[in-house]
Amino acid sequence: MSDAFRWHGGRVADAQARYGSAEPWIDLSTGINPVPWPGAARIAVDWAALPDPSALVELEAAAAAHFGLPPAHVCAVPGSEIGLRIVGRLLDRPACYLTPGYRTHGEAFAQARPVSDPEDAPPASVLLIANPNNPDGRVFAREQLLAWTERMQWLVVDEAFADCMPGGSIAPDVGEGRQLIVLRSFGKFFGLAGARLGFLLGPTPIVAACRRMLGDWPVSAAAIAFGTAAYRDRGWINATIDALGERAKGLDALLARHGLAARGACPLFRLVERDDAAQLFEHLARRAILTRPFQAQPTWLRFGLPPNADAMERLDRALAGG
Amino acid sequence: MSDAFRWHGGRVADAQARYGSAEPWIDLSTGINPVPWPGAARIAVDWAALPDPSALVELEAAAAAHFGLPPAHVCAVPGSEIGLRIVGRLLDRPACYLTPGYRTHGEAFAQARPVSDPEDAPPASVLLIANPNNPDGRVFAREQLLAWTERMQWLVVDEAFADCMPGGSIAPDVGEGRQLIVLRSFGKFFGLAGARLGFLLGPTPIVAACRRMLGDWPVSAAAIAFGTAAYRDRGWINATIDALGERAKGLDALLARHGLAARGACPLFRLVERDDAAQLFEHLARRAILTRPFQAQPTWLRFGLPPNADAMERLDRALAGG
Repeated sequence: MSDAFRWHGGRVADAQARYGSAEPWIDLSTGINPVPWPGAARIAVDWAALPDPSALVELEAAAAAHFGLPPAHVCAVPGSEIGLRIVGRLLDRPACYLTPGYRTHGEAFAQARPVSDPEDAPPASVLLIANPNNPDGRVFAREQLLAWTERMQWLVVDEAFADCMPGGSIAPDVGEGRQLIVLRSFGKFFGLAGARLGFLLGPTPIVAACRRMLGDWPVSAAAIAFGTAAYRDRGWINATIDALGERAKGLDALLARHGLAARGACPLFRLVERDDAAQLFEHLARRAILTRPFQAQPTWLRFGLPPNADAMERLDRALAGG
Repeated sequence: MSDAFRWHGGRVADAQARYGSAEPWIDLSTGINPVPWPGAARIAVDWAALPDPSALVELEAAAAAHFGLPPAHVCAVPGSEIGLRIVGRLLDRPACYLTPGYRTHGEAFAQARPVSDPEDAPPASVLLIANPNNPDGRVFAREQLLAWTERMQWLVVDEAFADCMPGGSIAPDVGEGRQLIVLRSFGKFFGLAGARLGFLLGPTPIVAACRRMLGDWPVSAAAIAFGTAAYRDRGWINATIDALGERAKGLDALLARHGLAARGACPLFRLVERDDAAQLFEHLARRAILTRPFQAQPTWLRFGLPPNADAMERLDRALAGG
């Protein structure tokens, strides 16, 4: 196996180069919703003009309504990955990030060290947590997170996968006088990761500093058009929360039939722990199914949601050894 | 006149709200090519997946070939505006920027002061210059810029408008051991400002630091697809350089017929100096033609290139008083 697959999901071109396949690949290596918000295909993006500032204001208002806080605390960023690195620059102090966790969390801060228990983080530092956590799908309760905002200098919560479990978001608690920053991702839940859109949520001085880092055109015309319409599409959002939950249950059942116990509470991915995880990755890759192995946890394999019934069937056959 | 128009070009929605118009607006308030690269309309963007790292490498290679330097010195950024602010953070020292110049140059550095003659900048600081300059279209010779790289700690050249005059770019001089950073914009020459794509060109330590600031997905799937194909479209690029030059001559002749002497060597915009610039802005705005006034230079009005013969005719009629 190449290290590239352990580094990031979504490396289908690398997988094809290494394993080859006449069949199209099933990419289960990311936590991106494989059934995207369908409205993007119907939007004619105006690529020619610079995005109008009023359109950006509208996007942030639509997103803020979805997150459940006033727009004054919301700044659009070109992807939550860039948002996190901006936070690292803005806070500019030592950080602790939860491990196991999302790899790039360690890269966002100049001085960052992993902690396996958030209580081990020194109070003078920044604590960086994903909720739900990636890749193990661990979920932290609001009360616990709020207690950490009291204890730490800053709590930064990466809610890239929180749209699937809206009751679990701490975004409505963001505001003045609380040292809490939340990052949201548009692409994962809405299945449009290519648009590069995310949001930083924080006290207004942090939002203002983020805007200064990005200038007047932080995101593309497509990101503005898609995001504004998608965050207002409550019907699709509610139906998708239900559908993802159902499909995650289906994946759990499928994995269980093959003796694979899946853990995690985030419906967009499931984590399997096995001594032969590397062999299982190879076995599936030879059948054009890409899963997500991990550098530091060689016994782990993460499965994203299969896009449809055909993909479920191919995964079923592949796990049966066929 | 509202200050919004003096702040940035492209505020057509604000203009419609203030002046109203049954006719569609002619937006001459930006320096964006009004005849975009036509290939974008033919590209089906893959919005669902995260952009593949190999596709980003290809984009940077195509762009580097166009700029005339090795890809190792090129980093894609989500718009040259964000690129400039990243430079401000990375260099993190006092800067001087040329005035009159591009407004946001002053905002990119924490400590920045305007100089009207680059020779007045203290050698220990960063010198920030646009070439061609905006809004006056002033062009600096390569020898002059290279002399400044010797004199200054860092020279940063904003070449947002340089594609129209390829011989005038200093990009091929970027490399190791020279304290020179160049910023390029995709959207202006290719007329696709909504895609938010730019490039930072510099010594490899600066390129590496820029990549760390942005992470693995700095630009959207559309920016990658459009940029890769457009920078390779030499036929369109060469024809467009010629066409823009011809059309700028046409605009000069039109303005001259109405007693307006235009200056500047950049074909994407022309600067007119008049005591009654504010009245001329209003006169044109009432005829749904948006030009660009300036806060600090009330006698200036910048005209972008009209998109077609109809727009030229409407401008002609409007200047005639009709």
